Amino acid sequence: MKKLIKDKTHFLKDMLDGLSKTNKDIKIISDTVVVRADKKQQGVAIVSGGGSGHEPAHAGYVAQGMLDAAVCGEVFTSPTPDKILNAIKAVDNGEGVLLVVKNYAGDVMNFEMAQEMAEMEDIQVETVIVKDDIAVSDVDKRRGVAGTVLVHKYAGYLAEQGSSLQDMKAQIETVLPNIKTIGMALTAPMVPTTGQYGFDIEADEMEIGVGIHGEKGLSREKVETVDKIVARLLNELLNEVNEDRLIVMVNGMGATPLSELNIVAKYVDEALESQNKTVTKWFVGDYMTALDMQGFSLTLVPESETLLKALTASTASPYFN
Amino acid sequence: MKKLIKDKTHFLKDMLDGLSKTNKDIKIISDTVVVRADKKQQGVAIVSGGGSGHEPAHAGYVAQGMLDAAVCGEVFTSPTPDKILNAIKAVDNGEGVLLVVKNYAGDVMNFEMAQEMAEMEDIQVETVIVKDDIAVSDVDKRRGVAGTVLVHKYAGYLAEQGSSLQDMKAQIETVLPNIKTIGMALTAPMVPTTGQYGFDIEADEMEIGVGIHGEKGLSREKVETVDKIVARLLNELLNEVNEDRLIVMVNGMGATPLSELNIVAKYVDEALESQNKTVTKWFVGDYMTALDMQGFSLTLVPESETLLKALTASTASPYFN
Repeated sequence: MKKLIKDKTHFLKDMLDGLSKTNKDIKIISDTVVVRADKKQQGVAIVSGGGSGHEPAHAGYVAQGMLDAAVCGEVFTSPTPDKILNAIKAVDNGEGVLLVVKNYAGDVMNFEMAQEMAEMEDIQVETVIVKDDIAVSDVDKRRGVAGTVLVHKYAGYLAEQGSSLQDMKAQIETVLPNIKTIGMALTAPMVPTTGQYGFDIEADEMEIGVGIHGEKGLSREKVETVDKIVARLLNELLNEVNEDRLIVMVNGMGATPLSELNIVAKYVDEALESQNKTVTKWFVGDYMTALDMQGFSLTLVPESETLLKALTASTASPYFN
Repeated sequence: MKKLIKDKTHFLKDMLDGLSKTNKDIKIISDTVVVRADKKQQGVAIVSGGGSGHEPAHAGYVAQGMLDAAVCGEVFTSPTPDKILNAIKAVDNGEGVLLVVKNYAGDVMNFEMAQEMAEMEDIQVETVIVKDDIAVSDVDKRRGVAGTVLVHKYAGYLAEQGSSLQDMKAQIETVLPNIKTIGMALTAPMVPTTGQYGFDIEADEMEIGVGIHGEKGLSREKVETVDKIVARLLNELLNEVNEDRLIVMVNGMGATPLSELNIVAKYVDEALESQNKTVTKWFVGDYMTALDMQGFSLTLVPESETLLKALTASTASPYFN
């Protein structure tokens, strides 16, 4: 296995050590919890997290205007409830804590347990669960993928606007069903903690509908040119999105060059324009990755005035542009 | 070849189309020249560029506080003098134009020709040539690599401070000999315009001293753990850097996960600390890439008050943090 690591058992610790050494705006508590160096003194605090391997998610979004804490599990492994509880306790300033959770069984269960423990200590906690991956047909079983980062930003904005915990949850839950993502992979991620590829794929194949841990998607297909791949993904997305003014994220899966993400964006723009749809805000880059998987995901969200304002408001995170 | 492209002959055009569709702060002129949508009305204008395949360099740095134009060649191919001339003419506002050129024969020749043509049209032009890659022993033949991005930022800052063209050139040339970089690769880049890998490398090998086009470096070695790789590179760098307060860039080569760049940073920090050196500013991310090569480069620059101020001043580029 060719990886820039010392030891597979130290992957998470070494990554967090590097992050905290190089970024003075954050610090590590409780071994695997990233919090802001300067605790936010007012407004609802926002906690997210999950398995590692999705960098810059989630720790890279711990910053003014986005998250107050990220709880980092081992690679592709949910963080434990005690760590989530420690995060909640560290960031609560009396106005309550919102948990932003991706819809994976382990994450949902552990964040729920932490919420219950925090409530027993009289901390107000609410949870929103992101289920944006349309590759899964059953809406309740949809995975939380790149669209989660937009929720981090929206929540951060609402907190800065002084929303109450209940209002934030309600406002976010209005938007959540409208966030739609689908991903594709050209290659499988090499998982540093196992030394194995996440799945097998031939030199002329791609996986359509892949998840951010390399989970199987809709179908295994022969590789096509980018315009056809984009058409294929948009065909799935536009079954569920009818609006004409859209916010679009082209998310790199970790090892996709920025040049290719821009090429993807060109063909997304052309295809949407041909259907008389307008993109009012683009996000192009690595937001929610799967280690060193090559591929991308496409997220569409119908524009609203508030959402556009929230997603373009300033944040100190260097990874959200 | 698995690449998110439509046609290898359209790589550059499609990438620039995507970039300009998704970023309203820039526009494309003369097919392959990226300029700011709003031309800078005062101060020395700064033009850089070179072959494509190094994204976000150079087009991603066309922004307030950095470049005024980037001239984009085909993949790993120098841009032609006529395009460089068009860039110079487009951005000059009467205070002259500084060209920031990486030390490759084609780039140096073509930028020089463009400078001569511009001077014949009575535009003041000066050039600085970046030669930061210490993998080449002959100092005059050293390649310009990731350190170039720090020069973009320094130049952008000096321009905003109102430096004259001659002063800028002089100040930058004082710093240039102190910028030292060395790179390494775990994998070779797949070049989309040829469908070939940039070089051959075995599953248990790494290339030490690799260039940003996959040029051969110091040596081909068996893969080691990251701490040993870092020690190997720092050993080369610290032969040439004696100062104790350093600015450090850990630059991803395009397909290296951010997690691993942070792990690299941890071991760089530890190794420098053990030699009583202090890092006063870190840059960790993809700044100057080689398509989808896995690996990284390490740049050390002795800190100075002005340089630190310049490198931490605000810029509108989303890629320089």
